[in-house]
Amino acid sequence: MAEIRQGKLICIALDAMGGDHGPSVTVPAAIHILSRHRDLKIILVGDHETLLQEVHNAGGKENESLQIHHASQVVTMDELPSQALRGKKDSSMRVAINLVKEGVADACVSAGNTGALMATARFVLKTLTGIDRPAICTMLPSINGHTHVLDLGANIDSSAEHLFEFAVMGSVLASAVDNNPNPTVGLLNIGEEEIKGNERVKEAARILAGSDLNYIGFVEGDGVYLNPPNVVVCDGFIGNVMLKASEGVAKLFAHFLKAEFKRNILTKLVALITMPVLKAFRKRIDPRAYNGASLLGLQGIVVKSHGSADQYAFGKAILEARKEVLEDVPNMIRKQLESHLTTKEAS
Amino acid sequence: MAEIRQGKLICIALDAMGGDHGPSVTVPAAIHILSRHRDLKIILVGDHETLLQEVHNAGGKENESLQIHHASQVVTMDELPSQALRGKKDSSMRVAINLVKEGVADACVSAGNTGALMATARFVLKTLTGIDRPAICTMLPSINGHTHVLDLGANIDSSAEHLFEFAVMGSVLASAVDNNPNPTVGLLNIGEEEIKGNERVKEAARILAGSDLNYIGFVEGDGVYLNPPNVVVCDGFIGNVMLKASEGVAKLFAHFLKAEFKRNILTKLVALITMPVLKAFRKRIDPRAYNGASLLGLQGIVVKSHGSADQYAFGKAILEARKEVLEDVPNMIRKQLESHLTTKEAS
Repeated sequence: MAEIRQGKLICIALDAMGGDHGPSVTVPAAIHILSRHRDLKIILVGDHETLLQEVHNAGGKENESLQIHHASQVVTMDELPSQALRGKKDSSMRVAINLVKEGVADACVSAGNTGALMATARFVLKTLTGIDRPAICTMLPSINGHTHVLDLGANIDSSAEHLFEFAVMGSVLASAVDNNPNPTVGLLNIGEEEIKGNERVKEAARILAGSDLNYIGFVEGDGVYLNPPNVVVCDGFIGNVMLKASEGVAKLFAHFLKAEFKRNILTKLVALITMPVLKAFRKRIDPRAYNGASLLGLQGIVVKSHGSADQYAFGKAILEARKEVLEDVPNMIRKQLESHLTTKEAS
Repeated sequence: MAEIRQGKLICIALDAMGGDHGPSVTVPAAIHILSRHRDLKIILVGDHETLLQEVHNAGGKENESLQIHHASQVVTMDELPSQALRGKKDSSMRVAINLVKEGVADACVSAGNTGALMATARFVLKTLTGIDRPAICTMLPSINGHTHVLDLGANIDSSAEHLFEFAVMGSVLASAVDNNPNPTVGLLNIGEEEIKGNERVKEAARILAGSDLNYIGFVEGDGVYLNPPNVVVCDGFIGNVMLKASEGVAKLFAHFLKAEFKRNILTKLVALITMPVLKAFRKRIDPRAYNGASLLGLQGIVVKSHGSADQYAFGKAILEARKEVLEDVPNMIRKQLESHLTTKEAS
């Protein structure tokens, strides 16, 4: 897709005030990414003075590829989506999304309040025709590589049709970012047998089996991390619990491992010797490398960074947005949906 | 509770044929546990000849505290619960549960097919008055100790009232096995704020807040492993996905850690030096120590061991059953439910 852009810079609007750390992370991350990717232009959205200061602090300067766009408000991390939508019309988040709507930017990246981001993006950009519910999709590591999992909390009580929409969107995303023409798709369930699960999952399985997606059947919770299909589809309540429980297990392990290495002078010595191995291990499971969840199903590209992202992690979210622009993901989803609707009408 | 048993042995019926390894695990586990706990009597249920051979192989012999009860059939691990119920009336699983029903045994332990065990236990033993849906409850490790989580897959699409029943049952179990007079109870949700979650969870929160349980609010997925309340309540679909995803993360970590230690001769040397620390770490997160999930809400005690349990893990499941007999868990649940119903009528 890159060639049809004909040298035009990919423009990304950053909600530079969002996240736990705000501009102290977003601005240096932007400057670092720009130094590595000459096809990018970044618009930092937020308080002009603050951002200018951060740009200087990070050794950058305003130019064609790094611009500041003033916004007077900030959506806080615990604000209700409805409040953000009504009361914060000049927030850095809202203005960054507006820039996508107006065609000034190709994508928006934010580490801010997830609920407010989804509500605002949905309100401003609107959903694609045929998409009832946008979804949040992220990559998770697995023994055989990685998998794209959605929905992770944008929706609760998803119907079978919604799960099918998620499957279409996840399939397009996996196809685009992994350069995989026919990604496999599985449905998260409590057993691999056909008789297991609730009615919505069983009905979604029937719809998927009759579609032209590469549907391979049910996946159990452990399968997500062991040998998953390219895309795993689930209701947002379940996806959210699964993702957070996984984070919890990771933290529990890290806590106990640290405790054992700190037990006495001998184990502390062993820790020193083991450090390079542990570092290599940590790199393989580093959640920062997977930062950047996609809000799919919108008429525009919006990527959500983890609120606590550091500079490296936030940079990954910017690169995720860049990839989705290059691959024209929303348009691909639209086309895929149209082809499904046509097949349905023809049959 | 132990004193009122007045020296009578606690009798546990084992589905000795169940699980991935059958009698080669269940029989030695029984003999080992009997050697440690003089207040126990175990009835091995299954093919008489096979079990007699295993008892001899394990250096044991039939006596007052170790008996064999013949059953001619075995429920396989992939059998449909309905098939097991209709077609396997002389299975080791069914006969072991019958012994509880008849008052011959105080509890039943099985490593067999979970669905068949729940269906059979429910059919034979019946649920307690006031319990609509029995649930499966297990302990999970956390940074501050452990927590009891239910339901883990016996129910899908649980209503708010069902979630309340789970809370009552989990609370009684935690109280009994942890000797904790007033266990804290939380509801698994996708956020800690009151506005988050689906209608069932919100309604369950209202019921719990108005009950005399020690309800503390919502818990997120990561909270289960970090600083959870004594009891975490959720729908069985979600609990099952969460539990299995956690197993998946654990396996993924083990896989990557092993891979890094096996990278080259130097890392292999480091592995040798690190072994004692890694062993101590593994012991702290050993899922075998948490083996033995309780089928709660029945008129009798049934404990489910993991199908792949080894001798140590299966022994833990037997001890879980012993504890529940000593604490008279089903009776305690019945009393707790009655007190809730009385409070409800009086108010």
